[in-house]
Amino acid sequence: MTHRVRFQPDDIEVRADGSETLVVLAARAGITLRGACGGAGTCGRCRVRVTGGKIRVGEAVLAAPLEVPACQARPAADLEVVVPSASRLEEHRVLLAARAASVLGEEAGTVAPDGPLYRRVSLHLPSPSLDDPVDDLSRLLRALKGQVPADVRVPLEVLQELPSVLRANNWRVCVGYHVDDDGRSAEILDIAPGDAAVAFGLAVDVGTTTVVVQLWDLAAGTCVGTAGSYNRQAAFGDDVITRIIYAAEQPGGRQVLQEAVVKTVNELIGQVLAGAGVSSEDVGAVTFAGNTTMMHLLLGADPTYIRLEPYTPAANHWPLLRANDLGLAINPRAVVYTVPGIASYVGGDITAGVVAAGLNHKEGITLFVDIGTNGEMVLGNRDWLVACACSAGPAFEGGGIRAGIRAIPGAIEEVTVLPGGYEVFFRTIGDKPPSGICGSGLISVLAGLVDAGILDRSGRFRKDLGTPRLREAEDGPEFVIAWGSESGTGEAISLSQAEVENLLRAKAAVFAGIRTMLGALGLDLEAVDEIYVAGGFGQHINIKDAISIGMLPDLPPERYHFIGNSALKGAAAALLSKTARREIAAVARNVTYLELSAGNRFMEEFTAALFLPHTDMELFPSLKGGN
Amino acid sequence: MTHRVRFQPDDIEVRADGSETLVVLAARAGITLRGACGGAGTCGRCRVRVTGGKIRVGEAVLAAPLEVPACQARPAADLEVVVPSASRLEEHRVLLAARAASVLGEEAGTVAPDGPLYRRVSLHLPSPSLDDPVDDLSRLLRALKGQVPADVRVPLEVLQELPSVLRANNWRVCVGYHVDDDGRSAEILDIAPGDAAVAFGLAVDVGTTTVVVQLWDLAAGTCVGTAGSYNRQAAFGDDVITRIIYAAEQPGGRQVLQEAVVKTVNELIGQVLAGAGVSSEDVGAVTFAGNTTMMHLLLGADPTYIRLEPYTPAANHWPLLRANDLGLAINPRAVVYTVPGIASYVGGDITAGVVAAGLNHKEGITLFVDIGTNGEMVLGNRDWLVACACSAGPAFEGGGIRAGIRAIPGAIEEVTVLPGGYEVFFRTIGDKPPSGICGSGLISVLAGLVDAGILDRSGRFRKDLGTPRLREAEDGPEFVIAWGSESGTGEAISLSQAEVENLLRAKAAVFAGIRTMLGALGLDLEAVDEIYVAGGFGQHINIKDAISIGMLPDLPPERYHFIGNSALKGAAAALLSKTARREIAAVARNVTYLELSAGNRFMEEFTAALFLPHTDMELFPSLKGGN
Ligand code: FES
Ligand code: FES
Repeated sequence: MTHRVRFQPDDIEVRADGSETLVVLAARAGITLRGACGGAGTCGRCRVRVTGGKIRVGEAVLAAPLEVPACQARPAADLEVVVPSASRLEEHRVLLAARAASVLGEEAGTVAPDGPLYRRVSLHLPSPSLDDPVDDLSRLLRALKGQVPADVRVPLEVLQELPSVLRANNWRVCVGYHVDDDGRSAEILDIAPGDAAVAFGLAVDVGTTTVVVQLWDLAAGTCVGTAGSYNRQAAFGDDVITRIIYAAEQPGGRQVLQEAVVKTVNELIGQVLAGAGVSSEDVGAVTFAGNTTMMHLLLGADPTYIRLEPYTPAANHWPLLRANDLGLAINPRAVVYTVPGIASYVGGDITAGVVAAGLNHKEGITLFVDIGTNGEMVLGNRDWLVACACSAGPAFEGGGIRAGIRAIPGAIEEVTVLPGGYEVFFRTIGDKPPSGICGSGLISVLAGLVDAGILDRSGRFRKDLGTPRLREAEDGPEFVIAWGSESGTGEAISLSQAEVENLLRAKAAVFAGIRTMLGALGLDLEAVDEIYVAGGFGQHINIKDAISIGMLPDLPPERYHFIGNSALKGAAAALLSKTARREIAAVARNVTYLELSAGNRFMEEFTAALFLPHTDMELFPSLKGGN
Repeated sequence: MTHRVRFQPDDIEVRADGSETLVVLAARAGITLRGACGGAGTCGRCRVRVTGGKIRVGEAVLAAPLEVPACQARPAADLEVVVPSASRLEEHRVLLAARAASVLGEEAGTVAPDGPLYRRVSLHLPSPSLDDPVDDLSRLLRALKGQVPADVRVPLEVLQELPSVLRANNWRVCVGYHVDDDGRSAEILDIAPGDAAVAFGLAVDVGTTTVVVQLWDLAAGTCVGTAGSYNRQAAFGDDVITRIIYAAEQPGGRQVLQEAVVKTVNELIGQVLAGAGVSSEDVGAVTFAGNTTMMHLLLGADPTYIRLEPYTPAANHWPLLRANDLGLAINPRAVVYTVPGIASYVGGDITAGVVAAGLNHKEGITLFVDIGTNGEMVLGNRDWLVACACSAGPAFEGGGIRAGIRAIPGAIEEVTVLPGGYEVFFRTIGDKPPSGICGSGLISVLAGLVDAGILDRSGRFRKDLGTPRLREAEDGPEFVIAWGSESGTGEAISLSQAEVENLLRAKAAVFAGIRTMLGALGLDLEAVDEIYVAGGFGQHINIKDAISIGMLPDLPPERYHFIGNSALKGAAAALLSKTARREIAAVARNVTYLELSAGNRFMEEFTAALFLPHTDMELFPSLKGGN
């Protein structure tokens, strides 16, 4: 039986057969709900108000009015549902987009094109005669000779209309084509009457949280537009594990997740094309970089075994696809290149980052670290590369931290605590009243609390400090960073003992990963000549703070480099340069993956790192005087 | 506005918007009308009775009841339409199918497979572990190493489900794949849990009139089923020219013709699969051979310029396609190979025939002749090949001959006329009462009439023969072959003066083509060491008769060979053998095409051949005594 479900205040109605949850139905209505737990019913972020009708929750049928997590409710009658703004992911959208544009506007530059994935050429063919009556295809290939490799594939759709296209402008045509990286063959993607138009391509970073799309002029090598927004998949889980479970266990779940991310990408494509005044038909290539789970979900591949020992993805290296395989809103024959990954938890985003950072050209030993829910690391130089991943947990991204928010305006990103009176100074993004603490802010808070002697080296609040900021809450002691009177929300922003322990585990995992990888190679921290810190998160952290809490190695600041969104940089390089694609393929093939769960060295290192900064102070010589 | 159109006595209703003719609407209802003139309104074969409603013919609106050519009528209201059996192509169907099966049953044999287009292999992969955690795709490719070329393409659909397919039967799978002819790369087409199933393929001859499908076991090299029927495109014109006009000038005409032939092929595929108990998923390759126009219409390519000077097809060499590009009812990723053609009027059916006849291996000069509406000829040996086509006209296929029918039971196929009393003896296919004369019968009639002195050498009936069989009809003299009392239809079967002239022009075109081609190379008829006669038509003609009317050269009978449906033989060879595909590609590339319309030598030869047998009796030494 079908029911009508009307979402308010949007006033959009969809039809439902009763089998889908209100999260899926809202998505169909274009409303993306928050859903940190991926539909487990435990995070409460997807709450909606049912104001009319009946819903089914498990076996029970409940009548309106009531408030429920949308992920647990299915229609049992025609419904009227109000979605409060706090349950909507959309509210972050404008902020994220604005932030993406400002951040990425700086990053995108000019790249000298060196074998872009898509090119265009103008031709003027001699018209046929009884003396030269060869078929239209042979005539076209004859004119292309010397410009493209001899072996040219022509898709059926192009052939079907070739006679009229060639004759429409008196044998003048513009041919869009792709050359295979081995240089032996090419494929025509489109052909249109008239003179050459500019060839465009897209580089896309598919993050678990955020998706960013860049539009590039492939002949000039210039970026002509950038757009970013949240990944619509976030309605089905905040992190990769909840999304894998959703894909594996919900009927049709894999398809729902694929549609969500494709919709996200298509919306961003629409924005960059409109912004630059470019037609979708002129876009002949796209490159994607993302973690292994994101690539499975984008391509619709079964991700089930990524999370089950021994953690095998369906593939690390994906074939070249076509835009219409994925339903992308560009030339349907546009080539789709996916940056190859290394393992289930070291994906193409890392391969892209390693090449963007140039690790594969370094003489000295170089460490690449991307810190997010997972800490992914690559160590090596031009001769060898080793990678590993550690599950840092979502603490630095705000998971399990009541005050944790993304790096949006109003987020506290730096904190100083004066010893003595324990006065707190903080700086927010955009200088807005504080609404929470972002990842770099959490590192800074932790460093500040240690520095001021509020936390001891094992991460426990010292008692009897004589400041009202350290107070006893329901579930233990907490430290107030901002009073309700100062904050943008009217509520105090604080960090509890349990939350400090979450952060401690997260930073310990990163440091333990680095130490384990070095140890496996018989190297100590001092052997690292350079460190590249990547990721939207990594771009903003204060290195001194990260060292002082023992998350990153105690090395001279000049060895540290930030490279921002290195996945996007790598994707853009792959779009424009054959050399980059070759290097990416070589890196993905040659990196040795170290499975940290396979030995107990990691657990030892992890336990040792559950101190501030570490049980072994010898590892942090620069801090010895200070503490 | 939509109308309902109900066809009787089938009692099938379709919806119409008023823009389509009753021919197209009948096709949608599954009823294929005859349509020799392709909708020009001149042949009258598509007549239907409108018993209720109103139709539009041009600007006029006419009310039922009335009889009209369906190709001229469009609905102007809800309609009731009766389709008489005489207007249906279906009535020939069973006869054709039965005949195809009996004829082709003999032809299909065993071919030693040598690189078939599709193969299957069973694999048992080691299951993954922490020591061997490579991704599923790499594991699969590792197991395939040595069995297939190193460069293996895997389609997205296969990758998406790979994890569950590999694990479904404990890492035992059957992989279906295609190896590129250069031997450098391969593509996986399907993968299923469990042990290897047999790999099947189809060879298809797409004739203008008839379509034949053969099912082959690709590992054993045995033909396991054959089915044939009329080409449903016949509703839109008897010959290639009317179909090209239909495709070029009717809105949506190209698509209508493509759907018609794909429907024909799919019906035959259904028959052979059901007959052999084979699943459509086990069919991984198809090869098509047909003339250039048939291939354009099958693939949906614009055929407009085939019939306009300088006669350029969209392509002679088509790319390897997939079953779902065409909507074929087999494994959607099955490879579709199209035998390449040589020119607009020398198609892939001829290339296939030349290789089937082995011209490209002959030491002596060999002539290949395929006689139908067009006479197509190839001359040469292992060192060189020349081809030409002459428009013989449809007379030998029954076009423009009142009594002309296809080679179905009841067709007169041999005639003897006694001099003296001019008594006529005839033999029909299946010894049924005569219902018309097929192509070989027409040759035999012509030879008989000349032999008996009823026709003079210029093809005119002699007056005053004193037999009632030569009688004066409305439009001139005619000779009665079978009286109404003898025939299966109750009506006399006769040949008129005008029809004799049609036949004369047809045979003259063939002979002139052969002479012109030889002449262009400075060769005379005697230089020809062997002659291969191909085509359903060619299989049944009496060589002595064909020589005595001056259609084929006067060479000793032992130099003649019949090779039946050589297009289908060539298509089957291409399906099973890489060597055959290489030879086909080489032949298509190396044949020199001679455009007969480009010089006036052909016209001179044609005029000289408009005699029985020829103006130059020196060319027919064996007949000099007899006539
Ligand atoms: S409670 Fe619904 S997604 Fe977490
Ligand atoms: S009159 Fe209709 S097809 Fe010829």
